[in-house]
Amino acid sequence: MYFFKNEFIPAHDVHISPNDRGYYFGDGIYEVFRVYHGELYECDAHMDRLERTALEVKLTLPYSREQFVNILRELISRNSLTEGTVYLQITRGEASRAHPFPQTAEPVTLAYCNEVPRPLATIQHGIRAVTQPDIRWLRCDLKTLNLLPNVLAKQAALDRGVQEVILHREGIVTECSASNLMIVSQGELLTHPANNLILHGITRLVVLRIARSLSIPVREEAFTTDALLQADEAFITGTTMEITPVVEIDGRPIAGGTPGPIARQLQAEFERTFTK
Amino acid sequence: MYFFKNEFIPAHDVHISPNDRGYYFGDGIYEVFRVYHGELYECDAHMDRLERTALEVKLTLPYSREQFVNILRELISRNSLTEGTVYLQITRGEASRAHPFPQTAEPVTLAYCNEVPRPLATIQHGIRAVTQPDIRWLRCDLKTLNLLPNVLAKQAALDRGVQEVILHREGIVTECSASNLMIVSQGELLTHPANNLILHGITRLVVLRIARSLSIPVREEAFTTDALLQADEAFITGTTMEITPVVEIDGRPIAGGTPGPIARQLQAEFERTFTK
Repeated sequence: MYFFKNEFIPAHDVHISPNDRGYYFGDGIYEVFRVYHGELYECDAHMDRLERTALEVKLTLPYSREQFVNILRELISRNSLTEGTVYLQITRGEASRAHPFPQTAEPVTLAYCNEVPRPLATIQHGIRAVTQPDIRWLRCDLKTLNLLPNVLAKQAALDRGVQEVILHREGIVTECSASNLMIVSQGELLTHPANNLILHGITRLVVLRIARSLSIPVREEAFTTDALLQADEAFITGTTMEITPVVEIDGRPIAGGTPGPIARQLQAEFERTFTK
Repeated sequence: MYFFKNEFIPAHDVHISPNDRGYYFGDGIYEVFRVYHGELYECDAHMDRLERTALEVKLTLPYSREQFVNILRELISRNSLTEGTVYLQITRGEASRAHPFPQTAEPVTLAYCNEVPRPLATIQHGIRAVTQPDIRWLRCDLKTLNLLPNVLAKQAALDRGVQEVILHREGIVTECSASNLMIVSQGELLTHPANNLILHGITRLVVLRIARSLSIPVREEAFTTDALLQADEAFITGTTMEITPVVEIDGRPIAGGTPGPIARQLQAEFERTFTK
């Protein structure tokens, strides 16, 4: 069952209009919520971000926060989802193709569940990555449907035989194709500040909170690709990837080619946040 | 009648899948063709650009150039279109939402006609514009469905009471929200070079060709916002806007607040390219 335009309907009955601005402009926003044990994880943080993105792109949300959360919970229940994700997308509505905001169109809401297992193998063994210039727009903090640069970056990684790409702007590391990046250097946890150049990841927030609770020094400060390659540890954080160590970058081993102790410590503590 | 997935069908029968990568990633490309007197204008140039964009984003086009052109002509004929546009869009197909290119999905083609009159009033009287930072990605030469920055820029212009926005990167003028920009300065026609920072407009090409044929000196060279504000003339070029003078920028009159002589000369000659 999907939620689409005010009702719960079977997936095959969801028909998007060719006049949906999401289809021809990518004029819409989204969130991917994690579900553990049938419950929305960090729901408030996701809703905060959705509301902020909506405000920034001037899209009036069609439901209150309470209504959205009820829709998502109803979806989880109707689909008997215990472990997976809920995808929620809102576009600026249906209108003939013209750049200006339409005067009368109503936003179109689409939401559905996916069964997604936890990424246990990559959490355990880590992934390999390559660096690549970050050519995205200057509002990467907005979670919009304009994701072609992310798609191309991810595919470039796969084409080069690794799982992820680490983006940098003129040598300053930003984040990955669909996750944030953290490194450990001289005992400190470093990650790009949450400004316009990166997505303000929910898992990023959770991990920083955990690190501080474990008295691991944290600096939200940009670092170079050189610092990245010399890091003691590196790992990515994301809603579906959780905390995934990066054990090789551009062909060079990081932390001796295995997940490092800080990553392990954070993973264990992170797991406690959703384990009953 | 629309063209959708290999067939001509009524508009109301076109149902886009929520799994269309165009809908959730903007993972697709497009062209807007001008139709004058029932015929595709500069069809080869548009098809060249479509093929180039497809190559750059690694999207395999589902039809040959000849097949595409036949589809567009058939659309024009079935809709009895004499003056307007044909919109053509191809997405990377339908698949569950995941960044990597899908292995088996077939591209989805959508095409339809619009009756669009020539913009005679704005061609005659010009438009007003404001300048604004260009925050788009670094492949503005690719005509993709990731158009939210363009939408937001256009709307910002309207919100400020003018018709168009002129974008600049740290003081270097690039183009407008959906058209290219040219200025006349000391008898020369200046416009941003066709690199990764602007869309390689078809009307831009046509106008440069016309200017050279009229022995107007042309320089494809970037210029600053200061040069823009001091220009003798400014005008935008685009498939639907043709050659539209800009008579005011950031509240200051350009060319005395009226369309200039070079713009007029180019307009007249441009019109001859499609007038029988």
